[in-house]
Amino acid sequence: MSLTQSSAGSIASTASVAARRLAVLSNAERNEALTALYEGLLANKDAILAANAKDVALASRAAEDGDLNSSVLKRLDLSRPGKYDDMLQGILSVRDLTDPIGNVTLRTLLDDGLTLERVSCPIGVLLIIFEARPEVIANIAALSIKSGNAAILKGFSHIPALGGKESTESFVAISTVISQAISSTRVPKSSIQLVQTRDVVSSLLAQDTLIDLVIPRGSNDLVRFVKDNTKIPVLGHADGLCSAYVHHDADLDVSVKVLVDSKTDYPAACNSLETLLVNEAVLRTILPTVAKALVAKGVTLKCDEPSKGALADTLDSADMNSIVDAVESDYNTEFLDLILAIKTIPASAPGSGVDAAIDHINTHSSKHTDIILTKSKATADYFMSSIDSAGVFWNASTRFADGMRYGFGTEVGISTNKIHSRGPVGLDGLTIYKYLVRGDGHRAGDYFDGVGGKKWKHEVLPL
Amino acid sequence: MSLTQSSAGSIASTASVAARRLAVLSNAERNEALTALYEGLLANKDAILAANAKDVALASRAAEDGDLNSSVLKRLDLSRPGKYDDMLQGILSVRDLTDPIGNVTLRTLLDDGLTLERVSCPIGVLLIIFEARPEVIANIAALSIKSGNAAILKGFSHIPALGGKESTESFVAISTVISQAISSTRVPKSSIQLVQTRDVVSSLLAQDTLIDLVIPRGSNDLVRFVKDNTKIPVLGHADGLCSAYVHHDADLDVSVKVLVDSKTDYPAACNSLETLLVNEAVLRTILPTVAKALVAKGVTLKCDEPSKGALADTLDSADMNSIVDAVESDYNTEFLDLILAIKTIPASAPGSGVDAAIDHINTHSSKHTDIILTKSKATADYFMSSIDSAGVFWNASTRFADGMRYGFGTEVGISTNKIHSRGPVGLDGLTIYKYLVRGDGHRAGDYFDGVGGKKWKHEVLPL
Repeated sequence: MSLTQSSAGSIASTASVAARRLAVLSNAERNEALTALYEGLLANKDAILAANAKDVALASRAAEDGDLNSSVLKRLDLSRPGKYDDMLQGILSVRDLTDPIGNVTLRTLLDDGLTLERVSCPIGVLLIIFEARPEVIANIAALSIKSGNAAILKGFSHIPALGGKESTESFVAISTVISQAISSTRVPKSSIQLVQTRDVVSSLLAQDTLIDLVIPRGSNDLVRFVKDNTKIPVLGHADGLCSAYVHHDADLDVSVKVLVDSKTDYPAACNSLETLLVNEAVLRTILPTVAKALVAKGVTLKCDEPSKGALADTLDSADMNSIVDAVESDYNTEFLDLILAIKTIPASAPGSGVDAAIDHINTHSSKHTDIILTKSKATADYFMSSIDSAGVFWNASTRFADGMRYGFGTEVGISTNKIHSRGPVGLDGLTIYKYLVRGDGHRAGDYFDGVGGKKWKHEVLPL
Repeated sequence: MSLTQSSAGSIASTASVAARRLAVLSNAERNEALTALYEGLLANKDAILAANAKDVALASRAAEDGDLNSSVLKRLDLSRPGKYDDMLQGILSVRDLTDPIGNVTLRTLLDDGLTLERVSCPIGVLLIIFEARPEVIANIAALSIKSGNAAILKGFSHIPALGGKESTESFVAISTVISQAISSTRVPKSSIQLVQTRDVVSSLLAQDTLIDLVIPRGSNDLVRFVKDNTKIPVLGHADGLCSAYVHHDADLDVSVKVLVDSKTDYPAACNSLETLLVNEAVLRTILPTVAKALVAKGVTLKCDEPSKGALADTLDSADMNSIVDAVESDYNTEFLDLILAIKTIPASAPGSGVDAAIDHINTHSSKHTDIILTKSKATADYFMSSIDSAGVFWNASTRFADGMRYGFGTEVGISTNKIHSRGPVGLDGLTIYKYLVRGDGHRAGDYFDGVGGKKWKHEVLPL
């Protein structure tokens, strides 16, 4: 792990060399490095927390001066109960996951003595740009090593400063420990490089021949900045504009439970509900109960005319204080707050409204997670095929869109990409495959139709 | 299929709407459209060949004037024996492939009544830019429909003209037939849009919110132009700089067979051999026989000093006429011709030379297909893990890197990307997946550690 200032080119090429060495290590060798990482961070807990305390003190002053968001301050503090232990436990959890490398997913006998295999392998070099959270370094280092990828890590605090400055002491302390821990193992030291240089991000984003994938972890602005400034493939999501559609046959109790959880469980999360589409037929049956429950949780509802009218007729005046008029841009807004945009879907629209809901979502949502509330399996199936999003749920909260909840053990991030990896990305998303052919002097020119030509066998072999 | 001039934005948004309709059709409905396509092209063979003859006549005049490459002319001619029938048969082959859509690849019981599924689905809207070959339209239309994707097709002839002009008559004839054929089925007409406007490519490449994947099929220049001019993910390969390494323990006969086939079977192909790395230990044993066989096939060998010296001592003077001095840039050149660059690997290098060969290949090759010739399984395995390419072969010709030869039935192209799809891309490369969660009012907030919290089941269910 290099802590010195170096050029983006040399960082990327060092990482590239390390990646090739990592690619030939066994699972046991990679796991050994993760154990060393765990032990190093455990043994150096006091020193790391002391370094972190300096960062927190510095950041607290910035927060008092109004120069730093208090949530950034909170995320920075490694001394909060359980946080350090969670970081340590996370390394062991990643270590104990199934090896994502070397899995044969296709095996074909092309001809006698000539076999084809498709085998999972690391992608190569990852550039991970993340908002200042010191424990993220350990997490990313663990995921990268486990998947056999080299990683260049760049902490990032706010655009346009690109600094990540406020966690430097923690970073240096953690990265020194990681570096020492790795150096006792067969994993090359340059597999994990922490970049401290402030202005190196743009030049790293230009290294598209050496860096294979960029993973920005953080705010919409961060992701958008990265996407707009690189030709390297980017894995992540800028927005989480999740929508729910309440069909005319939705169950009242199910709707209330799912919608309240989707909106209020953790409003700042990318998988929280932002837009509610309500079938006209249930404006006076389901919507008032849903609205009352949401308002009770402190949610402000931004309603179109029909939904507002229905609520005005059914809610008491205290609750009506939380109802405001929606404007068109509300249906394109990720509030990340206790605010929900509500829009009415005409019941006379095709498919009794479901097609209009689908069109709205495919046009306005960010392709993250969208849900339907209906009793009809046929309607749900149609909605689930039609919606072009990473997650499409039936009678379940948007908040289930999460790698831990899906049972992936860990999560690199949530992707709204249309290729490679979509939804919560586990270790598999950090792998690709290669094709291996083994022969014994086989020539392609020997295979042709007609006299004397060899014929393909193309026999599927057991995996 | 729109043949009128329209803006890139309206082309892309029409395609996007069609893609959502396509996504809900069954395999039978998509296959029905492919049958209609086949029947339409069969019934209109004479008219299409007549239109193609006009293009060929025009192109022949351009070729006589030196304005058109004769190979472009040859690729344009649909009347060559078997070509039209191959095009028709190709549609039926694609139709009869296993449905790539709706495959459940993961099923987990998250908790009672709450299930997660990962299901394959179309990517959405493809932009396919290809060099002027009329039968490619039918092939791409078939692949797109089978995989449930909408496709925008743009013929392309030479940079910077971006015209594809010389096949307009064939395109209009074929596309009219495709359009008519599709309109009798449930596949939306705008699923396949042929773009004729000359200057629309750049603006289509800017539609990154509506177009999900660009597939350039053609020359290095075409692929590079596309990669340099879009933020949409690109699937393909610019270069095919394939290398072979002859280890000190390689078998002579196997080496000759594999290397001659790799270089001479079809020198203009992307999977042909361009660089030969020879272990110093076999410069005077294996290399002379290999060189003699290559020279007999008309290959010019561009040698470094040690390999040239070895050949000068062993070949006769007639053969030596085909030996020339290599310059450094030869090891970065895709000759696409009967030329091979040869470089000597010192036997004293780490791994008896295999590490130096690996370093050379990982630095110089285009990550397409690279091979090793060795009797040692351990050396081959090490080489295959270390080489960062889509295909890595042991004692087999580079020319096997091909979707048909791999048994994929069809091939969209060969990808040197590090994510999504690598190597020969079959129908699977045109799909992605989504996560479906089915519940019954489940709330994420109910699951937590501690008193009263629900626990995850995360039970793997059978597929």
